[in-house]
Amino acid sequence: MEGYWLFLVLLVSALLLGFLAVLFALVWVFHYREGLSWDGGSAEFNWHPVLIITGFIFIQGIAIIVYRLPWTWKCSKLLIKFIHAGLNTIAMILAIVSLVAVFDFHNAKNIPNMYSLHSWIGLTAVIFYTLQLVLGFAVFLLPFAPVSLRASLMPIHIYSGLLIFATVIATALMGFTEKLIFALKTPAYSTSPPEAIFVNTLGLLIVTFGALILWMATRPHWKRPPEQNSKIQQPNGGTPEGTEEESTMTDCSNTDKSDVEFNSEAAARKRNLKLDEVGQRSTM
Amino acid sequence: MEGYWLFLVLLVSALLLGFLAVLFALVWVFHYREGLSWDGGSAEFNWHPVLIITGFIFIQGIAIIVYRLPWTWKCSKLLIKFIHAGLNTIAMILAIVSLVAVFDFHNAKNIPNMYSLHSWIGLTAVIFYTLQLVLGFAVFLLPFAPVSLRASLMPIHIYSGLLIFATVIATALMGFTEKLIFALKTPAYSTSPPEAIFVNTLGLLIVTFGALILWMATRPHWKRPPEQNSKIQQPNGGTPEGTEEESTMTDCSNTDKSDVEFNSEAAARKRNLKLDEVGQRSTM
Repeated sequence: MEGYWLFLVLLVSALLLGFLAVLFALVWVFHYREGLSWDGGSAEFNWHPVLIITGFIFIQGIAIIVYRLPWTWKCSKLLIKFIHAGLNTIAMILAIVSLVAVFDFHNAKNIPNMYSLHSWIGLTAVIFYTLQLVLGFAVFLLPFAPVSLRASLMPIHIYSGLLIFATVIATALMGFTEKLIFALKTPAYSTSPPEAIFVNTLGLLIVTFGALILWMATRPHWKRPPEQNSKIQQPNGGTPEGTEEESTMTDCSNTDKSDVEFNSEAAARKRNLKLDEVGQRSTM
Repeated sequence: MEGYWLFLVLLVSALLLGFLAVLFALVWVFHYREGLSWDGGSAEFNWHPVLIITGFIFIQGIAIIVYRLPWTWKCSKLLIKFIHAGLNTIAMILAIVSLVAVFDFHNAKNIPNMYSLHSWIGLTAVIFYTLQLVLGFAVFLLPFAPVSLRASLMPIHIYSGLLIFATVIATALMGFTEKLIFALKTPAYSTSPPEAIFVNTLGLLIVTFGALILWMATRPHWKRPPEQNSKIQQPNGGTPEGTEEESTMTDCSNTDKSDVEFNSEAAARKRNLKLDEVGQRSTM
């Protein structure tokens, strides 16, 4: 892998920033706020930032770059797809639970729902994220979609994933802003009490985490290499940046059988590839 | 150009959304707020959203995709670089004036400066944007930087540009949130008065504008084609997505002389290219 050590440094930095962000969220709600519980009060609301930062930011970030970890390249693409989909499913569940916490808190306190820009963009992000997960599962994990459909949807899947990730971070920043203005009265947010500085720093942490994930996810030379797997010829003759090649459906223990298909459907799809495309496929 | 009509539809949509966002900003400050003036009051603050949306979002967005407009491909790369740098310079000036308006307003009203996450991330974005502009001018416009430096900095320049653009939009969303909470008291933001709905919609407009710009800027098949110009071989043997190739220093009127260098420095740089790289350069 070209630039392996740089990748490693960035990965470790991203993991540290992600862990630190989750830690900051916990310190925020336990040290500065009312802790966590499920009673319709502020401690129920507090699940919202904790679950969003843990699931919708940290876990989603890891799910985005899981294909790029060089240690996974000896594993089958199918296995990594399951890990990618699994992490995203966990993130989606945590995001939905965090929404339930907010709606529950609002209803208990007679605060209107869905009035803020934060809520408009946040709910839109959750809906698009769920659609992306369902569509990704149907097209890239289930063995029914034709190769041409996978090839044409992959750039959209990658772009949408990165856009939703960035939008979630932007929405979190709006959420911090709202919460600090509403919660800090004496002393006010504008007087920069310790909690304000602490949560502003949390905001910088997640922006930096997001920037590292987006850098790692968009470097073409850190893509999972195609030579271990079969290859989809792109309509424009190239492979779009970040596009993951077709699965070879093997697990970590039998990488030497990377051209073995896991069912006849996939094999049939493969036969439909044009000869010149098949010719480019490595059987390593 | 592959997908010309789709590009055109997206471009027209982005322009309409951008114009609409600027129009919304003007309606916001003139219809719902105190208008525009330079008196230390709220009407001076109002320059902040108007100039940020006009310059730092709309004009920056256009500057990002100016290389991708197919009508400019017959023009020299140098001319388009000047337009790219010029639009970004205008955006930077408007952003700085908009910051002066806020500091002036805060100081006149004895409101502390730089306490909010919006201000922390916003000022960081302006500083990085200025650095990006100065570094881009020194490396890509002035004729002194070696080709190898340009090639290695280009992916960073592109990534930083898109990241700053996305960060500016996220910062604007935080700004809308702050302003709506502070300004809407009777009726409050939470009761969704017309101004709240209007500015939330403005938030959706700039997110959609940003999403279109980022899509257009990252499609490899919409890149300015290299065959009209000289070409830099990338260290990893490919051309990173979005990377613009080396300038050929001609204007729109003499594209048939695209291999003519505008000074001896550039010619000397060219001689330093390896033979196989020169071999790939078209003289069309």
